[in-house]
Amino acid sequence: MTSFSPALLPDTLTSALEKVLGPGGLLTQPEDTAAFLTDWRGMFHGKACAVARPANTEGCAETVRLCAEHGIPVVPQGGNTSMVGGATPDDSGRALVIVTSRMNRVREIDPVDNTMSIDAGVTLKAAQDAALDAGLMLPLSISSEGSAEIGGVLATNAGGNNTVRYGNARELVLGLEAVLPDGRVLNLMRKLRKDNTGYALRQLLIGSEGTLAIITGAILQLQPKPKSIETALCAVADARAALKLFAAFRNVEPSAIQAFEFMSGLSMTLVNTLIPDAPLPLANPSPAYVLVELASPRGGDTLRGLMEEVLGKAFEDGLVSDAVLAESEAQRAAFWKLREEHSEAQKRAGTSVKNDVSVPLSAIPEFIDRATSACKTLVPGIRVAPFGHIGDGNIHFNLVQPEGADGAAFLARDHEIMDTVTAIVRELGGSFSAEHGVGQLKSYMMPEWRGGAELDVMRRIKAAIDPAGMMNPGKMLPKAG
Amino acid sequence: MTSFSPALLPDTLTSALEKVLGPGGLLTQPEDTAAFLTDWRGMFHGKACAVARPANTEGCAETVRLCAEHGIPVVPQGGNTSMVGGATPDDSGRALVIVTSRMNRVREIDPVDNTMSIDAGVTLKAAQDAALDAGLMLPLSISSEGSAEIGGVLATNAGGNNTVRYGNARELVLGLEAVLPDGRVLNLMRKLRKDNTGYALRQLLIGSEGTLAIITGAILQLQPKPKSIETALCAVADARAALKLFAAFRNVEPSAIQAFEFMSGLSMTLVNTLIPDAPLPLANPSPAYVLVELASPRGGDTLRGLMEEVLGKAFEDGLVSDAVLAESEAQRAAFWKLREEHSEAQKRAGTSVKNDVSVPLSAIPEFIDRATSACKTLVPGIRVAPFGHIGDGNIHFNLVQPEGADGAAFLARDHEIMDTVTAIVRELGGSFSAEHGVGQLKSYMMPEWRGGAELDVMRRIKAAIDPAGMMNPGKMLPKAG
Repeated sequence: MTSFSPALLPDTLTSALEKVLGPGGLLTQPEDTAAFLTDWRGMFHGKACAVARPANTEGCAETVRLCAEHGIPVVPQGGNTSMVGGATPDDSGRALVIVTSRMNRVREIDPVDNTMSIDAGVTLKAAQDAALDAGLMLPLSISSEGSAEIGGVLATNAGGNNTVRYGNARELVLGLEAVLPDGRVLNLMRKLRKDNTGYALRQLLIGSEGTLAIITGAILQLQPKPKSIETALCAVADARAALKLFAAFRNVEPSAIQAFEFMSGLSMTLVNTLIPDAPLPLANPSPAYVLVELASPRGGDTLRGLMEEVLGKAFEDGLVSDAVLAESEAQRAAFWKLREEHSEAQKRAGTSVKNDVSVPLSAIPEFIDRATSACKTLVPGIRVAPFGHIGDGNIHFNLVQPEGADGAAFLARDHEIMDTVTAIVRELGGSFSAEHGVGQLKSYMMPEWRGGAELDVMRRIKAAIDPAGMMNPGKMLPKAG
Repeated sequence: MTSFSPALLPDTLTSALEKVLGPGGLLTQPEDTAAFLTDWRGMFHGKACAVARPANTEGCAETVRLCAEHGIPVVPQGGNTSMVGGATPDDSGRALVIVTSRMNRVREIDPVDNTMSIDAGVTLKAAQDAALDAGLMLPLSISSEGSAEIGGVLATNAGGNNTVRYGNARELVLGLEAVLPDGRVLNLMRKLRKDNTGYALRQLLIGSEGTLAIITGAILQLQPKPKSIETALCAVADARAALKLFAAFRNVEPSAIQAFEFMSGLSMTLVNTLIPDAPLPLANPSPAYVLVELASPRGGDTLRGLMEEVLGKAFEDGLVSDAVLAESEAQRAAFWKLREEHSEAQKRAGTSVKNDVSVPLSAIPEFIDRATSACKTLVPGIRVAPFGHIGDGNIHFNLVQPEGADGAAFLARDHEIMDTVTAIVRELGGSFSAEHGVGQLKSYMMPEWRGGAELDVMRRIKAAIDPAGMMNPGKMLPKAG
């Protein structure tokens, strides 16, 4: 169980940290620290010598410096929404968890540059809202945005629903501020679209999962707020048809495609039957569905015309058998609810094994076909329920336990099932983690997938920037040897 | 002068390299190597023990491995179009220059993924043409594209005319292949839009100017070919008005803006008077101009409507005093000629000092005002001729010698002039090199601009990946101490 190991925090350090962090900044009691020592899925449980909640960059830097001085490893944590145990300490109890939540200032929104300068502890939702208040849009949206904080979002290079249009988190970052393992502040807070002066340290830190530095601030690129949005739910035969529909939109106006999501028929049925108020708004169930959303900062009905033009042609070509366009914001929300509730519906259907994988777009149909059949052979009755960001080649290839079967027995085979799926991903040139990262859940996969020169260079970088291995130990890079 | 230092290339290595590189692959005679030992601007002259031209990745890797074994530094070179001496060896004569030009295969174009897999030695122009032949577009365009090769384009994170819409070179790269300093091949050739599995090595190598590895191949993201393009040349009062016009387009349809270029009145006059067949297509000269180009993969006249809508409003608001829309491809080419010939016109007007700087968008007007006045104070009669990618905050703040003055005397003050300009850039939070990189011309500026923790981390990364300092020595990072 989670617990606090006070013996490992020397008194002198405790008082120094209390001074730096101020009232409520240092948590040392089990009832206060417990929430930070377990991941939200309940898969990982760790221990820590204390939990620090600095209020600003200086406090964070001084905390890290003190830890470095005392040989105490640090585990950065934002909203604690990692899917891979990336923010949960190990069970040695040696580490100090540094939680960024109190660093939650929106520093500046610049309506000429269309940028937002922000503390790492602002939640993604709060950042989105601040942008909207200024008449702009932060085009990054993930399921956990109410809790996930900007620092974690960047440390994991989050993806989400709008990646197809605006790219991953890394594409939105102009400036970055981070605390290095020795407590120095790395100030890369430059509001520049072009700046070729040295190594792309900002890019290196984004996606490094807190193993090189703690991100404390960022300058994000904003977009004009859309004035028109069109959302359609389409019935398609399979992923092959979904992909052709994607190409049809892309070839006419790629920049209008704000989201392009795939949902398998089985997964949609789980949503319709297990989630209240989530009926299918089409006459008949389909083997698969696409949720497509177009957006433009331009008003008028250009976008509706585009949607109708492409869908009309898709009907004629037999790509789409039925479709419904959202006629109100409420209807749009209802369509999105159908998409967003997949994880919850699968949870209600029993235990499930999740695979957040990506393959080249062209390989998606083959991947789904082969992985479906391999899983059905492995576990008769298994419910194959893929969905996700098909426009990015990113499928959440989730597998729900057979109906009525023993959930724990199914979950006990999770590695066997994941290995079956990822073996196919690998043959197709894909990735074992498209957007969730590596954390502690998947670090064992790194040698096989990213081994040789690639892992060697990663290890060299880690050793160069964090020679004592004090930053988020045990995450991402597997132990050598 | 450039010369060949055969004594530094041991016989055993010569024969090993000849075997690896095949006929014509190893150049050792002064008349053969000369072209590779001077940069195209004639600013830098170096020496080398030989020039190697590998035909493929394996040949390149084996060449690097042999050099590492013999303690011979390597200098990667693509089309030799660096603006900062980034591909010219130093004058020790120790280094081997590795030229990528023979590695010039387009490996694959995938019309489902919209990707191009390509050797590093393909010129940017050839890559653009290959994409067009497949009905797609490689959205990267720079003045030197006829000579510049993909490897160099990526090693310097090139920008250019379409950055405002599609980002810098780094935003276009999905996969990368590179040879490490010890000759191992780093294979990151993954055709994935989402892949969060370890440090972003691809991003680290992009923009590293050949100091960490030699890029040998890449997978680039392509776009649908535009079906409609609208180009307008607009007369504006100053950069302030140009910026407001940019915001007007951006707030209506940012994704339609393929290029948004600023030209000062003086610089335009030099083009009109010194370049044949480059008349101003407007009734009267203006203090400044904007070349705006909109593009869409969609046909029809939507784009013309957008152009007219925004420009009409801009006339009413007094932002634009005159404008002409290209009515044919020939007219469009004529507009672009006016933009592309600025460097040549300035050259014909005498000697000039170039500053490739960037500032936040909001700071552009203040930057141009202050830098203009500071330069005029410093050198009475100096001709201030800025132009460039204003939509990216990137101004080529070029200064032409006073009319009739001594060119050499003017050029002798280049550092003084550059320092005057960059001091203002720095106060405004800008960068001393927006898109040209650092190379050997500007490495002396790194400690002042990127010093402290930032330069320290860069040095650690360099030492980790290239511990013996064999990759493009003397470039980007200044000598320590």
